[in-house]
Amino acid sequence: MKTVRRFYNYFLHPEREFVRRLRRLLGFTPAYLNVFKLAFQHKSNNGDTAKEDKPYGGQNNERLEFLGDAVLGTIVAEYLYKKYPLGDEGFLTKMRSKIVKRNSLNTIGDNMGLDELLSTYNNVRIAKSMLGNAVEALVGAIYVERGYKKTTQFVVRQMLRNYVDIEHLETFDDNYKSQLLEHCQKNGSKVDYSVVKRFKQDKRDRFKVAVNVDGRRVAVGEDFNKKSAEQIASKRALVDMGIKVSR
Amino acid sequence: MKTVRRFYNYFLHPEREFVRRLRRLLGFTPAYLNVFKLAFQHKSNNGDTAKEDKPYGGQNNERLEFLGDAVLGTIVAEYLYKKYPLGDEGFLTKMRSKIVKRNSLNTIGDNMGLDELLSTYNNVRIAKSMLGNAVEALVGAIYVERGYKKTTQFVVRQMLRNYVDIEHLETFDDNYKSQLLEHCQKNGSKVDYSVVKRFKQDKRDRFKVAVNVDGRRVAVGEDFNKKSAEQIASKRALVDMGIKVSR
Repeated sequence: MKTVRRFYNYFLHPEREFVRRLRRLLGFTPAYLNVFKLAFQHKSNNGDTAKEDKPYGGQNNERLEFLGDAVLGTIVAEYLYKKYPLGDEGFLTKMRSKIVKRNSLNTIGDNMGLDELLSTYNNVRIAKSMLGNAVEALVGAIYVERGYKKTTQFVVRQMLRNYVDIEHLETFDDNYKSQLLEHCQKNGSKVDYSVVKRFKQDKRDRFKVAVNVDGRRVAVGEDFNKKSAEQIASKRALVDMGIKVSR
Repeated sequence: MKTVRRFYNYFLHPEREFVRRLRRLLGFTPAYLNVFKLAFQHKSNNGDTAKEDKPYGGQNNERLEFLGDAVLGTIVAEYLYKKYPLGDEGFLTKMRSKIVKRNSLNTIGDNMGLDELLSTYNNVRIAKSMLGNAVEALVGAIYVERGYKKTTQFVVRQMLRNYVDIEHLETFDDNYKSQLLEHCQKNGSKVDYSVVKRFKQDKRDRFKVAVNVDGRRVAVGEDFNKKSAEQIASKRALVDMGIKVSR
């Protein structure tokens, strides 16, 4: 039955162009095309159209994202568990969060060319932050169609090996806030953060955060969430204080 | 090969009593007994014995816990994804965290009788908090031996159906802090928390936290971490203020 569906989707389906693009990305022809279409259906789309025009009764990719996020986390956990037989829990946890954190997934989605597929099914501008969600939703869709084992193959071969530099991540520390705190603690300096501006941009909250060392403002950072703005400000502070080399 | 190992473990192994207890718990005889022994090896044990006496070169169940935590999270995510085809991401996320949070896992482990198995391989007193970790490590061990599908069967049949009341969890809200904040916000009252005492008990940090409504101390709570102490204090405050019925 799946074979017949795949044959139909590849050769006869009205959207066979989309099917073929998916095939190039996935390495197989999807049998359940609707699930994959849903994976690229961002929630921002739901508001635009009348209920009856919305595919799948107003559904979007968030449920698939929920499932894919879990599946991806487990696949990466198992991959690391096997790759580092002597790595302790702390190391494995850190490595995993470096791989599956929002920013990394956004970059992976970008490299996979998901923006192109997203724009097929969304009338909004594709923000970088939508790419990571699409990666998770895509993993969810593959899981729904092919189960755990095949999804593992896809994630390891198409995502981890192509787009993740594991060896680099081992030594790479991108928690600039903790680096700054550590450095200042050693030198007896006090660090604090303050929100200096909070405003709306593209209908979303945006934060401008300042980092102060011993009461003196060293740097500012701006982003759509406070944590990330603090990281940006901390990175700039580290460069400014000559602790980190900018690149 | 696995069959031979199982036969040997069940009938001839010097620790066949442990094997049989595991069989009652798991529904199958483990072939790789060492993995299951490791699952019950708590880290607090490592300090007691000389390096050469430690099983598996000083390993403990933390790596299996890391793996099992991820696997369990995915199995529960999939279970909820299928059970609630109309549940949105927020609902699914909340339900999952109610099931896999520390306290629930401790209770599940208790009901499964893991304390007995833990005490076989640990010379320390079995704290309730060790049970949840053991549940995760056990799921990790099952996954290592039997793969994803069989682990799903075990988790759904032996854990979720027996020990988790999903319907109850749908309406159950145990975030007392957010309940208290919501109630006070409605009434224009201000809530804040303060640590009134921090001390050592059983070599661990213990916190005594007070909750104040409009500057007046309403209740206190005590636990090994601040968040949990705040929850306990909030629950007491809710009862004290007549918002919640104690039971």
